[in-house]
Amino acid sequence: MSLIVMKFGGSSVGTAERIKKVAERIIASKEQGNRCVVVVSAMGDTTDELIDLSNQLTDHPPAREMDMLLTTGEQISIALLAMAIQSFGHEAVSYTGWQAGMITEPVHAKARITDIRPDRVLASLDQGKIVIVAGFQGISGDGEITTLGRGGSDTTAVAMAAAIHADYCEIYTDVDGVYSTDPRIVKCARKLDQISYDEMLELANLGAAVLHPRAVEYAKHYDVQLVVRSSFNHNEGTQVKEEAEVEHGIVVKGIALDKNVARISILEVEDTPGILAKVFTSLAKEGINVDIIVQSGTLNGKADFSFTVSSADVGKALQVIENIRPEVSYREVTSEAGLAKVSIVGAGMVSNPGVAAKMFEVISGQNVNIQMVSTSDIKVSCVVAADRANDVIIALHSAYGLDTSEQAFVGGPKERR
Amino acid sequence: MSLIVMKFGGSSVGTAERIKKVAERIIASKEQGNRCVVVVSAMGDTTDELIDLSNQLTDHPPAREMDMLLTTGEQISIALLAMAIQSFGHEAVSYTGWQAGMITEPVHAKARITDIRPDRVLASLDQGKIVIVAGFQGISGDGEITTLGRGGSDTTAVAMAAAIHADYCEIYTDVDGVYSTDPRIVKCARKLDQISYDEMLELANLGAAVLHPRAVEYAKHYDVQLVVRSSFNHNEGTQVKEEAEVEHGIVVKGIALDKNVARISILEVEDTPGILAKVFTSLAKEGINVDIIVQSGTLNGKADFSFTVSSADVGKALQVIENIRPEVSYREVTSEAGLAKVSIVGAGMVSNPGVAAKMFEVISGQNVNIQMVSTSDIKVSCVVAADRANDVIIALHSAYGLDTSEQAFVGGPKERR
Repeated sequence: MSLIVMKFGGSSVGTAERIKKVAERIIASKEQGNRCVVVVSAMGDTTDELIDLSNQLTDHPPAREMDMLLTTGEQISIALLAMAIQSFGHEAVSYTGWQAGMITEPVHAKARITDIRPDRVLASLDQGKIVIVAGFQGISGDGEITTLGRGGSDTTAVAMAAAIHADYCEIYTDVDGVYSTDPRIVKCARKLDQISYDEMLELANLGAAVLHPRAVEYAKHYDVQLVVRSSFNHNEGTQVKEEAEVEHGIVVKGIALDKNVARISILEVEDTPGILAKVFTSLAKEGINVDIIVQSGTLNGKADFSFTVSSADVGKALQVIENIRPEVSYREVTSEAGLAKVSIVGAGMVSNPGVAAKMFEVISGQNVNIQMVSTSDIKVSCVVAADRANDVIIALHSAYGLDTSEQAFVGGPKERR
Repeated sequence: MSLIVMKFGGSSVGTAERIKKVAERIIASKEQGNRCVVVVSAMGDTTDELIDLSNQLTDHPPAREMDMLLTTGEQISIALLAMAIQSFGHEAVSYTGWQAGMITEPVHAKARITDIRPDRVLASLDQGKIVIVAGFQGISGDGEITTLGRGGSDTTAVAMAAAIHADYCEIYTDVDGVYSTDPRIVKCARKLDQISYDEMLELANLGAAVLHPRAVEYAKHYDVQLVVRSSFNHNEGTQVKEEAEVEHGIVVKGIALDKNVARISILEVEDTPGILAKVFTSLAKEGINVDIIVQSGTLNGKADFSFTVSSADVGKALQVIENIRPEVSYREVTSEAGLAKVSIVGAGMVSNPGVAAKMFEVISGQNVNIQMVSTSDIKVSCVVAADRANDVIIALHSAYGLDTSEQAFVGGPKERR
């Protein structure tokens, strides 16, 4: 008998029919002897519909009222799911974020959880009930309704699992687990049985949308074992856990892709102390996320440097740099959109020399130019032309031995069924 | 400068456009120097849509989860209304029932308010903000989300007005105020300028749907002056206040109609003590509301008695009477549906003899048979055939001098524009 937290996303509870399926799934787990706390997101399109309503009223909805509005989405889901479970003859009770004791910072739209007081959740578990908790939402110390921002329901689930010392936290989604790369691009992508928090974090940050990075960080910090699995079948899924517990067979675990990358280069910058800080502080102030930064060697006291931003941020970033021209001396600024970042991820990389070299070799073998490179202990990222990124990923996937044997021959997306 | 509570029903906030109109109206009141607390219901069809969702899952949704589900409706309205007001450059803040301190009994679906702790409402008013409160909902002492049942938003508004000692409470609706009778039936129905709580209570109970009876009772108990007015124009509306403050010009204030009446008669009942109590206790236990009760004189220790129930309850009521046959001896039970109750209401009635006699005269003048009669200090009700009820009301309205002079000639529904 285990104490488990099960999290179901918006598409899993998108219709009354799906809610019934989820209810049956939870009941099956309960009947296996588990004590279940369930975290759910808002039904499918609810959040978009609510945002649409607010857009009809104002272009700049205040964050506090937006939280008030959007948290109704999960409140609807939890009530319906509790009803569905009860209609099958099992006891269930739903709790909003504030009822479940999810205390957050007094910040709207992207609050962090500061404390969890799961008294009511635990009391209901003790009464043998299935407990349904609204994801994504909390309450600040001064009684304001808050939300956790994107991917917030994953965070709710992991945080609740930590607070009640659950044996593990199951994240139900519309795919079978975490894949070695995007199966829509690489047909013979491999479903991973296990992955470490750090590897998952790299994959999550790099665009593998199955788990929100903040939830993974939280899981790592509180040592909550995660299982990512499909809500549509009973396949095993992917376990996300401590590095030490993960069996290491393959060096490169997965390949991630971010297709919305743009490069900005500032040429012949006066290379005096504090110049880089000036540039990047100004960008950060405007909410622009800078990813890879590359600086060339200094020549005559001047240096070139390049960095990547999301495609959507290029215009704003160029404006910021223009604005600081009085304080930062440079010759010119160039930019290039239409780029992609391809990353290989694997904790075994650090002790396996030649992994990066092989990556460069494979990419040039595809006749693709590498524009920028960035490395860490567990990943190597290369910036390449976006329109060649798929070819690169397919080649890398094969070169690092990630193709599933059967799949490599039949070529169908069998893994996703 | 007044402190006022303004209540807007679901149709007034049914669309984004209407929410903007309501926002403008509130701002106009604020700019006249008033401090405004606004109570809103769920948008137009939201509640029905939510009920529909629950019906897709279960025929018997648990009341607790139904409250959890339905209270999202008002939460959506308050957030959107606060956004709309802020988009016009005024400060506003929305509060759910629990945030506004609406404490109720620990009962679902029809909780009564037991206490109001409006600290946050008052603090926000002191900061110059327009305060928006979710109608219909509250929180029990043990932190459960509750609802007040039908007409609950009216009750929220009146209770809040009492708690914060508002100067008056405006109930905005889709008609101009309280009418002498249903303007859909009597074209020259008169909009009343003033009416007493008791008169309003009779009219509310008798089917004039503009104000919920519980809200009127609450207003009377706490001496909250009400104004019923249209959210679509700036006409004066109807003031509902203490008997003593109402100017008395006309004896009969209004005529109410309930078209869903059925009569049940129990013939030759053994007239022993406790028999009537037995019958009506049994009916009450099944949730059947009995209205008019008439008992004929006793003959040979046996009596006939008749009572009215709502048409929908006839079958259930007959079953209840059948079930208690072992304990109550009678010859037979008859029933008749298709009846209506017509009532004349007016506080001046008690000191004006002949008012009831005139009613009987007018009804027989229409060649309509009076089946049952019931009287109180401020009303006389007659049960007649439902298909003749409109004729009766038109005749009574004219006979008691309620027709508006202009309207009597032009005949159009001018009052409703």
